[in-house]
Amino acid sequence: MLQRTSWAPRRVPALTLPRPLFWCLVCLALPGTSVLGGQAGATEASVASKPLTLEAVLAASKPSDWQPLDPEKTLYMQLPAGRVVIQLAPQFAPRAVDNIKILVRQGYFDGLAIERVQDNFVTQWGDADHTRSLGKAEHAVPAEFIFSSTNVPFTILPDPDTYAPEVGFSGSFPIARAPKLERAWLVHCYAMVGVGRDDDVDSGNGSELYAVIGQAPRQLDRNITLVGRVVQGMELLASLPRGKGPLGFYTKSEPRVPIESIRVAADVPESQRSHLAVLRTDTHTFEEVVESRRNRRDSWYKVPAGRVDVCNIPIPVRSR
Amino acid sequence: MLQRTSWAPRRVPALTLPRPLFWCLVCLALPGTSVLGGQAGATEASVASKPLTLEAVLAASKPSDWQPLDPEKTLYMQLPAGRVVIQLAPQFAPRAVDNIKILVRQGYFDGLAIERVQDNFVTQWGDADHTRSLGKAEHAVPAEFIFSSTNVPFTILPDPDTYAPEVGFSGSFPIARAPKLERAWLVHCYAMVGVGRDDDVDSGNGSELYAVIGQAPRQLDRNITLVGRVVQGMELLASLPRGKGPLGFYTKSEPRVPIESIRVAADVPESQRSHLAVLRTDTHTFEEVVESRRNRRDSWYKVPAGRVDVCNIPIPVRSR
Repeated sequence: MLQRTSWAPRRVPALTLPRPLFWCLVCLALPGTSVLGGQAGATEASVASKPLTLEAVLAASKPSDWQPLDPEKTLYMQLPAGRVVIQLAPQFAPRAVDNIKILVRQGYFDGLAIERVQDNFVTQWGDADHTRSLGKAEHAVPAEFIFSSTNVPFTILPDPDTYAPEVGFSGSFPIARAPKLERAWLVHCYAMVGVGRDDDVDSGNGSELYAVIGQAPRQLDRNITLVGRVVQGMELLASLPRGKGPLGFYTKSEPRVPIESIRVAADVPESQRSHLAVLRTDTHTFEEVVESRRNRRDSWYKVPAGRVDVCNIPIPVRSR
Repeated sequence: MLQRTSWAPRRVPALTLPRPLFWCLVCLALPGTSVLGGQAGATEASVASKPLTLEAVLAASKPSDWQPLDPEKTLYMQLPAGRVVIQLAPQFAPRAVDNIKILVRQGYFDGLAIERVQDNFVTQWGDADHTRSLGKAEHAVPAEFIFSSTNVPFTILPDPDTYAPEVGFSGSFPIARAPKLERAWLVHCYAMVGVGRDDDVDSGNGSELYAVIGQAPRQLDRNITLVGRVVQGMELLASLPRGKGPLGFYTKSEPRVPIESIRVAADVPESQRSHLAVLRTDTHTFEEVVESRRNRRDSWYKVPAGRVDVCNIPIPVRSR
């Protein structure tokens, strides 16, 4: 019995719709909305029997499927154990991202520490004791919890979501959309990064940031500004000892992991950058990634789910 | 700016429906199904303005709301950092639980190790190298992926679920239900414990177990046997270094956390037991816990979600 690699899917097949069915669904879709398999993908009978591994889907991808990370929209957080790479989302939270970059370029975070790790919730870092000057950064940044969905590219998921009328992807980020309200917002999936705030909606300024390390805390959606996503090194934040204080804050007697530095990637010499690219979510390749998660058909899976949660879809990242 | 305790809800209020509305919904409910607030709870206008903290809800609970853990249905896994307490679910997976208890009582796990930690997925332990005899335990246990929902108590959640027609709770476990099929199954929420298996559905025997440490991997539902839930010490499993091998298995050069022992609580002297009780999920107190998660109304939250995922509801545990 080969249980060493057992029970977990050793192969992660992707299933694609038959082309005619796919194009039919595209025709039915709203303008500006791409369709990931449609409801037809939800039943066993309607999916094609062409299992592809996730690896095979990605291996067959075209260079144009991949978007290199923009060094001006990327942060490197250097911990003793390694580098955490954060892809910023200024298209959705321009003012918060601007303020964070001002802080970073002043060296604000260098020598600070991870201050909070709450199990199944968040890892948080920054200046818990407010000993540092914000310098040229704003002390209060207006809330960017939601944004207009007009002209925002949106690759919709066909499956129902508990929290929002529609969910999908835009610019390689998970987002939710309320079409009647013409509003959208970033979704608190695993590895998403946000801006700590006090009760006042404008009280966050980026001097405290958090990353989601557990079940998606979707109740935070539309209540706090998300600014990006950890695309490499997430395990360095998720595997830290949980804090013993209230809300998972470290107590004075607990050692804190220091932040050696946070840098904007553009400020790091080219030779020292992490050269990463993220899969574009408006591509056919990403459709196949999604379908591979909706219906797993390798021999391990006996009942394909036929559905997938927006937070259960990986947004692939690779070296370029 | 008190950001040290900011952005995360410092108070976790619970909201209850007005009593007449609640009883109205109870009247409308199907026989044998309890209702947690109903759809009426989903809108701001229909929830009462009586914020209660989760702590207040639990402080107001009655002793009868709490179910002490049954020592015959509880495992203690002793790691160097402390004890992990697992509540077993023999009502849903009797044969797997029986086999695991046979293994445990033979000392099968003592001196083995954590063998796999895959970020945002699972921590797995057991005998990866298959060096040990299973003794009197079965080598193959029939799949217990689903069970008849007939006569299974079910506290339904009113909110839609991506993966299942209905979700809710039974015996302090998260479950899903397909009423037309009269079938139900345990749900892969954070901290749920399952039985590793190979491709053959009957190949699992309990000699390798896993706990969920990230976003609920709901695609595993109905594909593998769940046997319980970690009710204390989950952070000891979730904060371990991620394995560098394929699927998060530790490589030979990585140190493994040893399992000092696994015991059935009933076999441990009374004085050394963890005396815990879990909140019954068929109580009014639990309704209030759920409502506190569906609509958070403390001053930090600006937009209550009005909905909640089955895996975002804590099932409270306390010392007794």
